[in-house]
Amino acid sequence: MSPANPMNNPKNKAGNFFEDFRLGQVIRHATPRTVTAGDQALYTALYGGRFALQSSDVFAKACGLPAAPVDDLLAFHVVFGKTVPDVSLNAVANLGYAGGRFLAPVYPGDTLSAESEVVGLKENSNGKTGVVYVRSRGVNQRGEAVVEYTRWVMVKKRDAGAPAPEAVLPELPEAVAAGDLVVPDGLDFADFDCAAAGSPHRWGDYAAGERIDHGDAMTIEEAEHQLATRLYQNTARVHFNQHVESQGRFGRRIVYGGHVISLARALSFNGLGNAVKLVAINGGTHAAPSFGGDTIYAWSEVLDSIELPGRSDLGALRIRTVAAKNIDCGTLPYKAVSEEGRHGYHPAVVLDLDYTVLLPR
Amino acid sequence: MSPANPMNNPKNKAGNFFEDFRLGQVIRHATPRTVTAGDQALYTALYGGRFALQSSDVFAKACGLPAAPVDDLLAFHVVFGKTVPDVSLNAVANLGYAGGRFLAPVYPGDTLSAESEVVGLKENSNGKTGVVYVRSRGVNQRGEAVVEYTRWVMVKKRDAGAPAPEAVLPELPEAVAAGDLVVPDGLDFADFDCAAAGSPHRWGDYAAGERIDHGDAMTIEEAEHQLATRLYQNTARVHFNQHVESQGRFGRRIVYGGHVISLARALSFNGLGNAVKLVAINGGTHAAPSFGGDTIYAWSEVLDSIELPGRSDLGALRIRTVAAKNIDCGTLPYKAVSEEGRHGYHPAVVLDLDYTVLLPR
Amino acid sequence: MSPANPMNNPKNKAGNFFEDFRLGQVIRHATPRTVTAGDQALYTALYGGRFALQSSDVFAKACGLPAAPVDDLLAFHVVFGKTVPDVSLNAVANLGYAGGRFLAPVYPGDTLSAESEVVGLKENSNGKTGVVYVRSRGVNQRGEAVVEYTRWVMVKKRDAGAPAPEAVLPELPEAVAAGDLVVPDGLDFADFDCAAAGSPHRWGDYAAGERIDHGDAMTIEEAEHQLATRLYQNTARVHFNQHVESQGRFGRRIVYGGHVISLARALSFNGLGNAVKLVAINGGTHAAPSFGGDTIYAWSEVLDSIELPGRSDLGALRIRTVAAKNIDCGTLPYKAVSEEGRHGYHPAVVLDLDYTVLLPR
Repeated sequence: MSPANPMNNPKNKAGNFFEDFRLGQVIRHATPRTVTAGDQALYTALYGGRFALQSSDVFAKACGLPAAPVDDLLAFHVVFGKTVPDVSLNAVANLGYAGGRFLAPVYPGDTLSAESEVVGLKENSNGKTGVVYVRSRGVNQRGEAVVEYTRWVMVKKRDAGAPAPEAVLPELPEAVAAGDLVVPDGLDFADFDCAAAGSPHRWGDYAAGERIDHGDAMTIEEAEHQLATRLYQNTARVHFNQHVESQGRFGRRIVYGGHVISLARALSFNGLGNAVKLVAINGGTHAAPSFGGDTIYAWSEVLDSIELPGRSDLGALRIRTVAAKNIDCGTLPYKAVSEEGRHGYHPAVVLDLDYTVLLPR
Repeated sequence: MSPANPMNNPKNKAGNFFEDFRLGQVIRHATPRTVTAGDQALYTALYGGRFALQSSDVFAKACGLPAAPVDDLLAFHVVFGKTVPDVSLNAVANLGYAGGRFLAPVYPGDTLSAESEVVGLKENSNGKTGVVYVRSRGVNQRGEAVVEYTRWVMVKKRDAGAPAPEAVLPELPEAVAAGDLVVPDGLDFADFDCAAAGSPHRWGDYAAGERIDHGDAMTIEEAEHQLATRLYQNTARVHFNQHVESQGRFGRRIVYGGHVISLARALSFNGLGNAVKLVAINGGTHAAPSFGGDTIYAWSEVLDSIELPGRSDLGALRIRTVAAKNIDCGTLPYKAVSEEGRHGYHPAVVLDLDYTVLLPR
Repeated sequence: MSPANPMNNPKNKAGNFFEDFRLGQVIRHATPRTVTAGDQALYTALYGGRFALQSSDVFAKACGLPAAPVDDLLAFHVVFGKTVPDVSLNAVANLGYAGGRFLAPVYPGDTLSAESEVVGLKENSNGKTGVVYVRSRGVNQRGEAVVEYTRWVMVKKRDAGAPAPEAVLPELPEAVAAGDLVVPDGLDFADFDCAAAGSPHRWGDYAAGERIDHGDAMTIEEAEHQLATRLYQNTARVHFNQHVESQGRFGRRIVYGGHVISLARALSFNGLGNAVKLVAINGGTHAAPSFGGDTIYAWSEVLDSIELPGRSDLGALRIRTVAAKNIDCGTLPYKAVSEEGRHGYHPAVVLDLDYTVLLPR
């Protein structure tokens, strides 16, 4: 029972490696988490969100909900955090998201748990890593799904000699279809109070192609992203260990990509103040890492304006929000061709997020 | 709909300029906010407050309240934060406060919203800025006022050529009169437990002119003031954007003045431990900005001892609390004459706050 | 009433000195504190704890409790914080703990207050300091004890000429005896869900002598330890005042030792994930101070495996968790002999904590 080399004590599980995943495997993630008003207060302190539906019980009730739900992305991060110890502890990179849907709202007192199914596997040609596709789902204490999404990560192999699995890539939608968007039970924007929400602009006031520089910016402090990432019980080591990271690729801790998503979403209030409800994450790319001391700006483009069948009170907008660091987004930085002729993101861009929101009509 | 210059997309409103304000104008501020036990926990973590009435439900009930209210200044900051996007986003300086009153206590679960009336306007002789006086009021979900105060700010003009309005200055009381102080319904200090509250000193033990060095001090971290200011949904840019502020007047982010008020109030527990309830803010000056890394000390002077009609259980003290940075307050730094002969504050002083508190008799 | 020298205004009490303590003296500490879901959320954000019993109401109910209790160490720190103004404001060093027991669990909404009895006194031979032993006890609003422990601190004398008291040393148990461990009413691990808890390892899978490197690490930020220490209303000055500490022994603020205890406990999840309930703190030494920027690692040794009479659902493990800074704990750093031949701790070790936990059988 007392191992000769305690470093190898198998009770401290080191996470899964590429060859540990099997197509169709279902992983039930650990640590159910009761989300509370305390979590939502911290979320507000971390990002400064002002979307009225999550900020005010009174506003939420006037929209037909029993109380203010917690921020959609708080629920997303909590579910994501549960998947980390099983899915991405040995990840080299978080490559993308697709088909994300927000389903039942999460209220203070709800308990979230999560599971993931392996829906794709492809070993890289170097034989040292592979890409794992998982479909993750968070459910509340009644078993109702609250959020689901596919993400894919590049994971190290434990043993380069392990045989490659048959490559299987899942079909990924370019965007969640209008018919698959879920409007929460009871949500009704017929009496939406634009003055309280802080914006006069309704769904019909936005058109595809329209672009908005959100103007404000937030400088990230190390303490802030660590507090956030621990709040989500996300255990990825690169966010927390300066002793090791000081010797690493960047010389410092990497900010959890979801922290930048939440910052960009909060900044988007300036111009999208009535976009109070996330219903889909269609895709997302963390174009570059962010670090403590970086200042995050954001701008958005309306990709699509979506009528929802049978709803005269609300409509959906598909939005691309781009976050960039240490550069004013008045120039709308996005794609760029490097000096070496490579096509890619403008070097300041850190996030390219494609998502769908509800607004009052 | 798709503007040629996205920087000018009017959906991202840039705040009001001096010429946008009209005397008598009433501004209903956006984003109602449900205050929770989570906010109060963060408030405690940010300032370390130990006043028993806000710390303990048991203590509060023994004082006749239904539960521990949230800190009075937390309610003030939340209301203040709502006014920023409309009143002070283009402010050059926050000049002063007067006539502040705390009315109904705020409990976890209450939803606050705010409105302001423009009660004074005066363009400055340079033609580039003007002073706006607003009377702001926060109300709860039952429409009961919880806090009201006048503040005045120097705001930029968008267009220096815009005509000056007729100068109107509101009448401002030097201090809230005894008869205007509001003791919350049910509050009764007849059985006030001094041992639990942490101080043996009752109302009658203090006399006008008495001065107390509070002794302790707090060093402000960037993450702390950012978390606080976002918690209050205060969007003033100077607090958050190091990328811009590194090129600005001070080379760094400016700490929200209200953060220093709350630090000074928490420090004042040492010597004013039984001053558990704020009832007025008579006036306040942010004498100099504070920055991350500054250490805040505080001392207080009793300005007046106020008997409240019909109350044998409690009395009020009018207090001046002075906060200074990076200097021990044992010398009671306050006003000073500079080397150039100018009268003003001692260079270390950052806050001069005149307020009124309740103590047990 | 208006003292000539305000620095000496006695209303700002300077804490007790060694000669102020009397054997048998009972000190009722100030500031009762209602603990809420907000405090628990902050606790999670500060340490990233993943023990399922505190994380999930659903899990806690399945274990027979009415709801998820707050973290045991949060209750400990809140009680400890209350003792600081009376016991250790003038302490030179926090020397040790013994006989700590966790009794009734603490739930959001409970109000904690604390008292201490002086159980030992011994002046040091230098005549300038002495050691004070206190037995501290936290109780809830129903008067039920929630945590109790003995700690001893070296406290300055106000006046070196004050006579030494008769030296009395309390009897201190090496560890809390099995018969004195308290399993909370209703707690039942018969249906303990190991998958949800995140570990397959039950009580019987651990053996005395077994050692586990917990692998992960956390870098401490100044804002984090300050937020934590204020959350606990702990007023010890060395944690908060960089202006003074920059001139002090270490040139910077010292991290509250309890912050390191909580970090080590959270890190221990990797390998001790089912150790969801603390029942005793047998002893503890803060071997060296920690500072902002330090990265904390931890490893543990199972000291004893304890069967609890009449319980087939759970058992106890006595654990030593060692935290070290800025060194990977794969080498299990602990005791060492210095170059000068002195026996003591490895220079990287900051904490040696001996405690007892419950696990499912």
